[in-house]
Amino acid sequence: MDKAQIFKRRVRGVRRRLGRHGAGAMLISRPANVTYVTGFMGDDSWVLLTNRGIFLLTDSRYTGQANSECCGCKVIERAEPMTKSVAKLLSRYKSLDSIAVENSISIAQLKALTRHVKKHIKPVAGLIENIRRSKGEDEVRAIKKAARITSQAFAAAIRYARPGITESELAGAIELEIRRLGAKVSFETIVAFGANASRPHHSSGKTKLKKSDSVLVDFGAKVAGYCCDMTRCLAVGKPGRLFERAYKAVRQAQSAAIATVKAGVALKAVDEAARRVIREHGFEPHGHGTGHGLGLEVHELPIVGPNSKGRLEAGDVITIEPGVYISGKLGVRIEDDVLVTKIGCKILSRSSR
Amino acid sequence: MDKAQIFKRRVRGVRRRLGRHGAGAMLISRPANVTYVTGFMGDDSWVLLTNRGIFLLTDSRYTGQANSECCGCKVIERAEPMTKSVAKLLSRYKSLDSIAVENSISIAQLKALTRHVKKHIKPVAGLIENIRRSKGEDEVRAIKKAARITSQAFAAAIRYARPGITESELAGAIELEIRRLGAKVSFETIVAFGANASRPHHSSGKTKLKKSDSVLVDFGAKVAGYCCDMTRCLAVGKPGRLFERAYKAVRQAQSAAIATVKAGVALKAVDEAARRVIREHGFEPHGHGTGHGLGLEVHELPIVGPNSKGRLEAGDVITIEPGVYISGKLGVRIEDDVLVTKIGCKILSRSSR
Repeated sequence: MDKAQIFKRRVRGVRRRLGRHGAGAMLISRPANVTYVTGFMGDDSWVLLTNRGIFLLTDSRYTGQANSECCGCKVIERAEPMTKSVAKLLSRYKSLDSIAVENSISIAQLKALTRHVKKHIKPVAGLIENIRRSKGEDEVRAIKKAARITSQAFAAAIRYARPGITESELAGAIELEIRRLGAKVSFETIVAFGANASRPHHSSGKTKLKKSDSVLVDFGAKVAGYCCDMTRCLAVGKPGRLFERAYKAVRQAQSAAIATVKAGVALKAVDEAARRVIREHGFEPHGHGTGHGLGLEVHELPIVGPNSKGRLEAGDVITIEPGVYISGKLGVRIEDDVLVTKIGCKILSRSSR
Repeated sequence: MDKAQIFKRRVRGVRRRLGRHGAGAMLISRPANVTYVTGFMGDDSWVLLTNRGIFLLTDSRYTGQANSECCGCKVIERAEPMTKSVAKLLSRYKSLDSIAVENSISIAQLKALTRHVKKHIKPVAGLIENIRRSKGEDEVRAIKKAARITSQAFAAAIRYARPGITESELAGAIELEIRRLGAKVSFETIVAFGANASRPHHSSGKTKLKKSDSVLVDFGAKVAGYCCDMTRCLAVGKPGRLFERAYKAVRQAQSAAIATVKAGVALKAVDEAARRVIREHGFEPHGHGTGHGLGLEVHELPIVGPNSKGRLEAGDVITIEPGVYISGKLGVRIEDDVLVTKIGCKILSRSSR
């Protein structure tokens, strides 16, 4: 499929679901959803999708970018506030009674819309997010490439992990390597030394690497808008006994969870597979979910957690990232990205752990 | 004032305004507002502020961080969804009739709250954002330090601006320098070579620097949560005539705008001062606003644009960033951060332009 066909197909998918909601048009405001239906990667731009047309409402900061990135949609440069521009555009559609909006918009935005738009406004939940779950070949290719660059950047940057470097500097070095390899950075790199790793979302700071520290790195490259999300742990010098035990538990938990992955399997069964192994090793399992979808966003559907309803579907790309955290002592997490298939899964992020 | 006093004072300010809205408590969800009243810098955590208590609702990923960062509030680790935890906590306050929520929350979040919380929910606009406008001494100090590091990082990284480097690599090098200097990165660095700079929010990519290119860099360090936002333009080799003319126009426009800055001056008068000079030089002025507030967020109140209502206040910290953009040819923007005082302003970001 060429680019134009890909976007046509996505727009068709949105229109089909929109019909089921009884809405003749949809206002798309979530940046990743805007990218999904138009190709535009900038900010502060909304899409109006009707039965026949598709418009990107942007401002002068982004017009040039929109014209070069958009595929199959009309770019409109607005000078007024977004909601006024939307109202003006919608006033052309006299026969349109109701319009769907994403329930991720703020109540302030909804209020402004209600003031200007004289049509029934219908909040919808996850309409495009659910379509985005199922990745096409081009999307999987992009994530795979992002994963390859992530691994290469890690291999290049790990040389900097010498005693005395700060967490923040190592994070910067990894991000520079990702950029050198021609990719963007998915999210702010987490680097945690020693006991800091016991905070799963540690904010990398001025802590310096010591001779016998462990290092946790959670990071990812982004290619053509698609994110990779990977976590690696390593020990500088000889690892302690506790670190070795925790690492083994997490590695086996990850393998066990990956072994369960297949279209049709309950999401919480994947989560439980990882937790069970960690418990068997005598540790408390991670407080966060075992995984999450990823694509145009680092966190998207489905969520793989203890309370998840629903099942894996072929085309899902998810992380598998169990961990062991012992407050004030250590943190170990191993994270890889896998593509769910009918017969099992493919690991997209291959690098030495 | 010590840290505890600063937070007490902030909380008192929120309670006072809350009283005017007739609400006995407020739910604070916007991350920068959460930071402002508690000191906590992580994500996914909300604050409940009542007449007597203040609680941070976080999850296990952030408990450690919350306990070390929070000042004057009680940290509650939640295992359930946020809105359920909020409802549980609120159920202790029988006599509380109505609760204020920020109008930046999504309609999905409001719906979930309405389902669980059996009290009158009152959206409020910009309550804490308006308090945040007026910066205290400690905040100004942090922004000043961030500005100093931003300048130093620029000076260090500019050595890398040799023909052949990509925009993205130069952005990475600047961010690494910021981290080396012990700060965080305020926002994704924008580096634009040559004609790419005609897009004010250009996404730094694989474009390589040529011998006679101009370079635009929009970037900033963050210290103790406080952002700097600075833009510098330079020419590699001998600049072209058009670039020289545009640069002169923008520099004079910035000086003219800065010269107007003083408490009590209309926001749009500052904006217009910059535009007038650019027009006098025969160029079309920038499509974006001339400036914006900055602090815990890179963009906060007030907005300095052609449609701005209201006036500058002593304690505002704003950017002044006029620009000239000629599609396909060049872009020039110069941006500095200034503190508004009763008698004029102080430039917080000093570095050679």
